[in-house]
Amino acid sequence: MRLPRILTPRTVAYAHCDLPCGVYDPAQARIEAESIKAIDEKYAANTDPEFRTRALIIKEQRSELVKHHLWVLWTDYFKPPHFEKYPQLHQLFNDATKLAGGGGGTKATTDGSKADELLQKIDEIAKIFWETKQA
Amino acid sequence: MRLPRILTPRTVAYAHCDLPCGVYDPAQARIEAESIKAIDEKYAANTDPEFRTRALIIKEQRSELVKHHLWVLWTDYFKPPHFEKYPQLHQLFNDATKLAGGGGGTKATTDGSKADELLQKIDEIAKIFWETKQA
Amino acid sequence: MRLPRILTPRTVAYAHCDLPCGVYDPAQARIEAESIKAIDEKYAANTDPEFRTRALIIKEQRSELVKHHLWVLWTDYFKPPHFEKYPQLHQLFNDATKLAGGGGGTKATTDGSKADELLQKIDEIAKIFWETKQA
Amino acid sequence: MRLPRILTPRTVAYAHCDLPCGVYDPAQARIEAESIKAIDEKYAANTDPEFRTRALIIKEQRSELVKHHLWVLWTDYFKPPHFEKYPQLHQLFNDATKLAGGGGGTKATTDGSKADELLQKIDEIAKIFWETKQA
Amino acid sequence: MRLPRILTPRTVAYAHCDLPCGVYDPAQARIEAESIKAIDEKYAANTDPEFRTRALIIKEQRSELVKHHLWVLWTDYFKPPHFEKYPQLHQLFNDATKLAGGGGGTKATTDGSKADELLQKIDEIAKIFWETKQA
Amino acid sequence: MRLPRILTPRTVAYAHCDLPCGVYDPAQARIEAESIKAIDEKYAANTDPEFRTRALIIKEQRSELVKHHLWVLWTDYFKPPHFEKYPQLHQLFNDATKLAGGGGGTKATTDGSKADELLQKIDEIAKIFWETKQA
Repeated sequence: MRLPRILTPRTVAYAHCDLPCGVYDPAQARIEAESIKAIDEKYAANTDPEFRTRALIIKEQRSELVKHHLWVLWTDYFKPPHFEKYPQLHQLFNDATKLAGGGGGTKATTDGSKADELLQKIDEIAKIFWETKQA
Repeated sequence: MRLPRILTPRTVAYAHCDLPCGVYDPAQARIEAESIKAIDEKYAANTDPEFRTRALIIKEQRSELVKHHLWVLWTDYFKPPHFEKYPQLHQLFNDATKLAGGGGGTKATTDGSKADELLQKIDEIAKIFWETKQA
Repeated sequence: MRLPRILTPRTVAYAHCDLPCGVYDPAQARIEAESIKAIDEKYAANTDPEFRTRALIIKEQRSELVKHHLWVLWTDYFKPPHFEKYPQLHQLFNDATKLAGGGGGTKATTDGSKADELLQKIDEIAKIFWETKQA
Repeated sequence: MRLPRILTPRTVAYAHCDLPCGVYDPAQARIEAESIKAIDEKYAANTDPEFRTRALIIKEQRSELVKHHLWVLWTDYFKPPHFEKYPQLHQLFNDATKLAGGGGGTKATTDGSKADELLQKIDEIAKIFWETKQA
Repeated sequence: MRLPRILTPRTVAYAHCDLPCGVYDPAQARIEAESIKAIDEKYAANTDPEFRTRALIIKEQRSELVKHHLWVLWTDYFKPPHFEKYPQLHQLFNDATKLAGGGGGTKATTDGSKADELLQKIDEIAKIFWETKQA
Repeated sequence: MRLPRILTPRTVAYAHCDLPCGVYDPAQARIEAESIKAIDEKYAANTDPEFRTRALIIKEQRSELVKHHLWVLWTDYFKPPHFEKYPQLHQLFNDATKLAGGGGGTKATTDGSKADELLQKIDEIAKIFWETKQA
């Protein structure tokens, strides 16, 4: 069982901006990926063709947002020392962004398992991200 | 002293999408508002005119994103029973979005105190949001 | 019977921009809502699946534009004295933007009656808007 | 003296969308051009460097919107018979969109006279537009 | 037979920007039109409804990009002396942008022959463009 | 001496789209980077503050476009076998996108030498790209 987020301390939030302002947060990618997962579930449960077309339109946008947020982290947040310490980072980001794309990723399917894989990759990235913030 | 976020349980993320997918999260607005706050600080500390122009360009965008994320919550997430239970909600959202705008809000100033006010309003909204999620 | 607009004096136009420049006009929302109405009619009259998919894609965008233009009026144009004088304004805007959304609004249906309801709400807003401009 | 718009019949609104839905309205371009004009005036009256930078950022966007709305009319609304009947139309649109651009148009200057010229061209286009709607 | 582009000298690239920076290149429109052509082919070869909906969503965007890139050339790059020397230019651009639109253009069909016509028009424009660059 | 591009065979163009349509072209990134280079030169030659502010606004956008086009190539075009054959690819893309960013890249400076470095990295990527297309 998971605690509702309201019960946990949530005083710090992290964003990105290419000033750079120094504020980043993998939650931005995760939130969109959660949305994709929910869209897949609603798609499976509703065979109305208009609803399904709308679901595909929106899933396309959410997947693009995931890619964008991840690209920003990869290029703007992570620095050479990070890539040295975590040699798997490049591949991890490449895999994750591919998982949100059209060639076998969440854009190309309504099968929720792709969204699950994407969420997992984002969590791996987030784990590393928060380790580097603590360092 | 605040705990680093990595030490807190963060297993659930909430997003928005107008399918609607049912996933929302005030963190999206807060992240952008944190960015505005950081931009204000960097602006104050750096008098280079090119840097300052860039800071204003980016602050304009971040403020717009705050407004957008808040508008989405106000229109898409909150429903009539919420507005009944929290009669201050309309005004709270109107105040918060004005605080991210050009007529006396974070777009119009580099004084970080406006960003602080904005963050406070977002936290008030978030508190109500999470109460309704628990209900 | 309604006169064609060409026969009426149309020398003033109002826009928005968050400088703020002080120029606003509910026509921006109405124009997009009229477009939604026309899309619904064309959708009903044409069963070609490619056409229908395109209609849904475009209706999604137009509905989003309606929401955006209304949000701008609500946050940027209307000021505390307006909300005092027109206590129904908050609810009116919340209803109108919901009517252009995915949870029971024009995004979620091709039934033109939702577009009609939306147009009616926009006209109510426009009436108040022009009253405040005269004041 | 001009009558306030509220006193004139304004029941019909026209939009564009490339379905096409058949709804167009030169007011979309005019509203943005009015905004540019107002920005120029506020720019002249306010020498605060932050305000001026914001004014330039926003004027850039508004000018781009004018160009976009005009391009849509030129390509999507006007048809071969219109261009035959109004042989000056191509040049008129090319001049008008150049007037909203960076090479001597409203993007390149804060001198309000360029905005005036742009508004005049839009009115010429609108006059022809409404003639064709009546035909 | 056409040589692969890798075998030709490709040291110069041209872009647009409304500073104006003076850098333009019809390749931007052509690249998107090639994409439309490829989408049409993939659409014809794949009857999966989800794939087809995605193809229509993306074709809509690519067509809009073609229109945008062409509009930029027509308004920002070409100057009065060009229109004098090439009196067909206005009509050529109007035809080309219509070919990328919804009223009988590439947005409205998945029949690749429209994309072919569009590509041909872009090539006519490119030929004139490069002649003017040499002048 | 370089031949003007008009003299070389340019019949093939390559684009991207996440259908995926299979059409990609590093020229998209290069065109925007050339634009940045030209903006830097115009910035150096013109001390008018309004012009300079506009140059910074536009350079910000062009730099973002470079990053986007490169990210698309890295995630959507290049596949595992490419990364095996060209183990430097990840770093090359990370360096190139950083060079178009705000932390020491073309967003952060008007010194044309950063644009030169960026163009060089794009050419390295293009060289590999075209080798893989021939393979």
